[in-house]
Amino acid sequence: MSQFLMAQPNGRVVGGKDKVFEISGKAKAAIAKYGKEPVSNATIGAIMDDDGNLVVLSSVLEVLRSLSPEDYAEYAPPAGLPAYLDYAKQAVFGKYRPEAFIAAAAAPGGTGALRNAVSLYTCPGDVITTADWNWGPYKTLCQEQGRSLETYNYFAADGSFDLASFNAKMSDILARQPRFMVFLNTPAHNPTGYCLSPEDWDGVLASTLEAAKDPEKKIILVLDIAYIDFCKDPENERAFFKRFENLPENVLVLVAFSMSKSYTMYGMRGGALLCISSSQAVADEFATVAAFASRGTWSNCNRSAMTVLTRIYENPELKARVDAEQAEIRDMLLRRGDAFVQAAKEADLKMTPFSAGFFCVIPCENPDAVCEELQKDNIFVLALAKGLRVSIASVSEAKCAAMPAKIKAAITKVNG
Amino acid sequence: MSQFLMAQPNGRVVGGKDKVFEISGKAKAAIAKYGKEPVSNATIGAIMDDDGNLVVLSSVLEVLRSLSPEDYAEYAPPAGLPAYLDYAKQAVFGKYRPEAFIAAAAAPGGTGALRNAVSLYTCPGDVITTADWNWGPYKTLCQEQGRSLETYNYFAADGSFDLASFNAKMSDILARQPRFMVFLNTPAHNPTGYCLSPEDWDGVLASTLEAAKDPEKKIILVLDIAYIDFCKDPENERAFFKRFENLPENVLVLVAFSMSKSYTMYGMRGGALLCISSSQAVADEFATVAAFASRGTWSNCNRSAMTVLTRIYENPELKARVDAEQAEIRDMLLRRGDAFVQAAKEADLKMTPFSAGFFCVIPCENPDAVCEELQKDNIFVLALAKGLRVSIASVSEAKCAAMPAKIKAAITKVNG
Repeated sequence: MSQFLMAQPNGRVVGGKDKVFEISGKAKAAIAKYGKEPVSNATIGAIMDDDGNLVVLSSVLEVLRSLSPEDYAEYAPPAGLPAYLDYAKQAVFGKYRPEAFIAAAAAPGGTGALRNAVSLYTCPGDVITTADWNWGPYKTLCQEQGRSLETYNYFAADGSFDLASFNAKMSDILARQPRFMVFLNTPAHNPTGYCLSPEDWDGVLASTLEAAKDPEKKIILVLDIAYIDFCKDPENERAFFKRFENLPENVLVLVAFSMSKSYTMYGMRGGALLCISSSQAVADEFATVAAFASRGTWSNCNRSAMTVLTRIYENPELKARVDAEQAEIRDMLLRRGDAFVQAAKEADLKMTPFSAGFFCVIPCENPDAVCEELQKDNIFVLALAKGLRVSIASVSEAKCAAMPAKIKAAITKVNG
Repeated sequence: MSQFLMAQPNGRVVGGKDKVFEISGKAKAAIAKYGKEPVSNATIGAIMDDDGNLVVLSSVLEVLRSLSPEDYAEYAPPAGLPAYLDYAKQAVFGKYRPEAFIAAAAAPGGTGALRNAVSLYTCPGDVITTADWNWGPYKTLCQEQGRSLETYNYFAADGSFDLASFNAKMSDILARQPRFMVFLNTPAHNPTGYCLSPEDWDGVLASTLEAAKDPEKKIILVLDIAYIDFCKDPENERAFFKRFENLPENVLVLVAFSMSKSYTMYGMRGGALLCISSSQAVADEFATVAAFASRGTWSNCNRSAMTVLTRIYENPELKARVDAEQAEIRDMLLRRGDAFVQAAKEADLKMTPFSAGFFCVIPCENPDAVCEELQKDNIFVLALAKGLRVSIASVSEAKCAAMPAKIKAAITKVNG
C-alpha cells in the first residue's frame, strides 16, 4: 500500500498478493477440472491424507465434543487455565525438562505466543533476527509491533548450519542495541525441514554465553517448536531442552508451544509461551507481564482448546490413543519425506538439508517462473524469494516420489 | 512492578492486585462456609442463574457440539471466514444497517477487536480517551501498545451525560495530536448500565463533525457494544447506527462485536471489528490492514466460534430458538435491574444512571473500605476508584432487591 488514508502505517509494509491463497485457488481450480489424481497441491500447511482430505485426530475430536457447557462457555483467566499450563510444559519438554525456573502463559496458537515474546522482551524500533529461510509471518509479527526483522544465512555453502553468519548477525545487532532476540524454528524447520544438530546447538549456545558476558546485554532465544512432534524421534529430539540449565540471568529462553499441528487443532488457537530462566525473579516477572500483555491484546484464550489438552494429559488411556494417532501421521509424513528426498537424489535435484516436518525447500533461480512452469504440470508449490517450498504434508507418498523429477525439469526449462 | 529485569516496560504500568480475582476468591470461600443462600457474589461479569450457575444457551451449545471435524480443526483465513463476517454485520446492525461502506475482520472477542482498533488507527505515544466510569482493561489495551488513556467525566452533576467534558477532552487531545480516538461503551455501559440517549448522540456527533472540519484531523469513534442485546429494546436501540451515514471521510466509526455475552460464549473468543466509512477506499484499507494486524498478532481466530454464528444465521428456526433463549436471559437481567433500582430508591441509595446491562454503580467515598464492610454481610462487589460495581448479572432478583439497603448501611457506617 503506497499511501495510508485513515490507518497509521506504524512501520507496517502492507500490500502484495497473498501467494498461498492465490496458488491454492489455482490448485483447487485444477482439481475441479482434472480431478484429484493428476494434481499435486503441495501448498497447504496442514496434514492431508492421500486423498487430499484434512487429517483430524479422532481422539482429539472426541474429547472436544465431550466437553461440558462450562468448558466451552466460561472465560479462562488471562494467563490461561493453571492445569493447562502445567500440561503444556509436559507437552513441550517431555522427559527433558530443564532444571530451571519455568513459567507459562496461554496464547492463541504459536503466533500469539511469538507476539507476546516480541512485545515483552524487545522495544519498538528493535531489530529481531531469524534465518534467511523462514516462515513469512515472522516479518509481519515484527512489523505489527514496530520492530523489524533481519536475517542471517541458515546454511553455509557446504549445506551445514552457518554458525559464522549467525554469530555475525548477533554481533551486528548487539553493536546497535542492547537486546538480541532470535526466532529459532527447530526441529523440523518451516520451510526447510532442518533440525539444529547437537553441534549446531553447541555453537549457538557458545555464542550466546560469550555475548552474555556483557551484563548490559540481554539475549533472548525464542524457540518455535511447532513441528517438534513430527521429528524422526520426537521423544529424544527434546534432549536439547536440557541445555537451558544454569544459563546466565541475562539469557532468557522462550518457547512457543502450539497445539495446531501436534493435535491437528489448527483452527482452535491453542498455544502458550513458556519461559526458561535461571532466575526465579525473571520467571515471576514473565508470568506477570505475560498476563498483562494477554489481558491487553486478546483478554483470554479459547478455554475449550486448553481443556482438551488437560483432558488428554489427565487420562493415560486417552493420552495413549492420541500418541498412537500422532505416531501414525508422523510415520506417514516421514515416509513422504523419504520418498521425496530419495527421488530428488535420483533426479539430481538440489534440496536444502531436510530431516522432517511439513515442508522441504528446493533452492533455485527465478522461483516464480519455475512455479508457473510447474503449474502446467498440475504441480502447485509456493515460490519463496530464493526457491520453492514444497508441502509434503499435503500430498501423497506417490506424488512426493513423482514431483522431484518434474521440478528438476521445470527448473532446467526456466533457468537452462 | 517497580523495576523490570528481562522484560521491557514499553509504557506498561504493571502490578497491583487483581481485585476481581481476590474478591471472587473470598466470595467462593464464603459460599463454601455458609452455603449459597446467604451469599451475594456480585463480582462476576457473566450471567449466572438464581442458583449461581453459569447460564449457557442450550441452542448455542447444541450447534457447537454438532460441528464437523473441519469446523474445529481447519485454519480460518486471518481476516475471518467470509460468511461469518457477513453475519457479524447482521448481528451488529439488525435492521439499522447504515448506508455506508462497511468492512469487517475477525478478532478474538471484543478485546481483540479493540486491540486492532488501537494498533491500526493510532500511533505509539497517542492518547486515547473514554469515560471516567469505564472498563479497566481499556487502560491495559492502551498501555500494551504504548498508548495512554485519559478520561472525561461521564456524568454531569445532574446525572446527565457530560457532553461539555467530552468536548473539552476532545479539544484538549486534538490540540496535542492529529488523531482523536474514543471508546464509547454503549448501550448498557459497563459498569454503569447507561445507554447514550438520542440527545447524547446528537451532541457527540455535532462535536465530531465540528472537529472533522479540520481536514488534518482524524476522528475515530470506537463503539464497544458488548452488551447491546441486553437493552430494554435491543432491536430498536440499534437505531443509532443509522447516524453513521454520510460522515466526512476523516471520521471513522469502528464497532467491536463480541459473541461473549449475547451467545454466552465468553470462553470461545468470537468477535470482530467492523468499520463504517463514507469512503470505499477507507473501508478497503481497513480490510487490508486489519488482516495484516491479525496475521501478525494471533494469525487467525477460533474457527468453531465463527462457524457457530454462521450456522445460527443460516437457519431461521435455529435463529428463532437462540433469540428466544436470549430474550429469556435478557428479561431476567432486566427484572434484576428493576429490582435493584427500586430498592435503591427505597433505601435512598444514590446510583449512577442505570438502564440495562450486567452491572450498576454506586458512587461513594472509600470504596475499598465499603467493600470490606459489605463482605461482613456476605455481599461481594468490586471496588472501583470512585464507587462500587455491582454485578446484577450474577445474583438473583431477590438478592438484587436486598442488596441496596445493606449497601446504604455499609456506606453510612464507613463514611458517616
